Amino acid sequence: MRQDPLTGRWVVIATERGKRPESFTHVPDRRVEPTGDCPFCPGNEALTPPEVYAEAGEGRLPDAAGWRVRVVPNKYPAFTADGEVKPACDGLYCSFDGVGFHEVIIHSVDHHRSWAQMNRAELASVLRAYRERYRAHCEDPRIRYIHFIENHGREAGASIEHPHSQLFALPLVPPVLEEELRGLRAYRESEGGCLLCAMVRSEEAGGTRMVGERGGFVAFEPYASRVPFETWVTSRSHLSSLEDLSEAALADLSELLGETLRRVFHALNDPPYNLILHTAPCDGAQAGLFHLHFELWPKLSLPAGFEWGTGMMINTALPEECATFLRGAHA
Amino acid sequence: MRQDPLTGRWVVIATERGKRPESFTHVPDRRVEPTGDCPFCPGNEALTPPEVYAEAGEGRLPDAAGWRVRVVPNKYPAFTADGEVKPACDGLYCSFDGVGFHEVIIHSVDHHRSWAQMNRAELASVLRAYRERYRAHCEDPRIRYIHFIENHGREAGASIEHPHSQLFALPLVPPVLEEELRGLRAYRESEGGCLLCAMVRSEEAGGTRMVGERGGFVAFEPYASRVPFETWVTSRSHLSSLEDLSEAALADLSELLGETLRRVFHALNDPPYNLILHTAPCDGAQAGLFHLHFELWPKLSLPAGFEWGTGMMINTALPEECATFLRGAHA
Repeated sequence: MRQDPLTGRWVVIATERGKRPESFTHVPDRRVEPTGDCPFCPGNEALTPPEVYAEAGEGRLPDAAGWRVRVVPNKYPAFTADGEVKPACDGLYCSFDGVGFHEVIIHSVDHHRSWAQMNRAELASVLRAYRERYRAHCEDPRIRYIHFIENHGREAGASIEHPHSQLFALPLVPPVLEEELRGLRAYRESEGGCLLCAMVRSEEAGGTRMVGERGGFVAFEPYASRVPFETWVTSRSHLSSLEDLSEAALADLSELLGETLRRVFHALNDPPYNLILHTAPCDGAQAGLFHLHFELWPKLSLPAGFEWGTGMMINTALPEECATFLRGAHA
Repeated sequence: MRQDPLTGRWVVIATERGKRPESFTHVPDRRVEPTGDCPFCPGNEALTPPEVYAEAGEGRLPDAAGWRVRVVPNKYPAFTADGEVKPACDGLYCSFDGVGFHEVIIHSVDHHRSWAQMNRAELASVLRAYRERYRAHCEDPRIRYIHFIENHGREAGASIEHPHSQLFALPLVPPVLEEELRGLRAYRESEGGCLLCAMVRSEEAGGTRMVGERGGFVAFEPYASRVPFETWVTSRSHLSSLEDLSEAALADLSELLGETLRRVFHALNDPPYNLILHTAPCDGAQAGLFHLHFELWPKLSLPAGFEWGTGMMINTALPEECATFLRGAHA
């Protein structure tokens, strides 16, 4: 059993029932099927709600063709702009309006070009859209956290094939982020400095879980990986928030994210995955505490009654073996 | 957004993207395939490790035919009997030996008879095996919690078709149980009495989320259901642990569990599911605090980047509508 220093959570690493890293190679059998007109393809801009952001050439009109990245509200939002963030209780039960925003970041005009197949400039455009939407939503005083994800492949929850990320602007700091903040705060108080900075130094010194590095950024398998090939991408020096991401840092991060996703693509045969960004909450006071990182969760195993019932994960692969396998993969 | 009073967790109920309850009906497409000899079928007793419990007629020899329920160690255990439960740290990273037991409870001799298709006496035999193994493992001072689950159907993580439960005897109280204990303790201190007893009274008075009742037991959809058709089965009067389950209570509980699973079977076309038992930790001091309950999680949705990254669930169905649908289903 291994403990994640950031959150204190325990993970069961059960290699006795495990397989060799190469046995996790994905057998594609449930791809997302195109269903008629793709609302995210150029020419179909009218099929989405009006855009809220686009990277495009000069003089282009909103919701016209000619964009490189486009952000639109989700047609079936999990959160809505109206309402009050104020819990009301009736007897034992409390609720409040799910105030927030749910948007789609369309990565490019190419329906078939996944993140692993995009070049650095294209990826940088996607991350720039993340950053700009982060800034915009954090200005709303009701919004406390912006959650960015990419679900790739049907088994990872994607319902539209055209590559896109999703953004959830939330009226609360989610529990997993609260846990990370708690861990960072405790370390700062007891040891001084940033725990994730220390983890990166430790990973670079040890080397067995490293997957890659580029400029100020590193990719590694976390010590207490929850799923086979869980991979984190983060910065060597302290970087709290998307907002702090300079254009130079954005270029390095794009390069390393692209390289890491290509390794996973080649090593595991384009597996379904969830790519998750953890960034600082909007609250300025806490901002300096957080350390931005991406978490990549390839979808190669199925959480079941053990995981749901206990809140603990059983991981059937050793992170050190997964890292070796990824380092050897084509990038 | 709804809050579970037991754990304090918030759930997003997003019916705008939701569907009618009947639209969740399962389309069976990935059943577990039989792969040669089933190790859980009678006659194949030699294919499993030696049994640790059986319900059988007088005079039967261990590991021979003639059993009704049989418990054997898992051939690929996630936990092992040897080792020390003592975290050791190396720099930032701590680990300890995953000391514990991982067993399989084979429900009956019938390869094709799922829980929903078993009669009350057969189900009572399964629950009796739960109870006896709970008692046995709690005597080991290294064991702090016994987790029981049934994974039904391949999409819910089952790898062997023959109906069976799994038991994990664990060297720690898992986080979800710690959260529930915290909630129960806080309520006892502030209000007096048991929070789950109060929840049952509230559900019975309200009625909109009730699914069924039998003797001293009730089935209902929790207010902050995390997935469509999440269903809890628990006792009206305070019942802390499996150990406290009398033969009479066991009969009523079996009847209601069977009825509830039949409702789900008919309403949703035999969906895959995880059935989870939450019972008191082995620690005697805390025992009276807990309130035993089953949690049924039909596998009709796919947790993705939002859920993994935030620790919050988005549920696309209203518990009240699910309860109405189940009440109307054949039982």
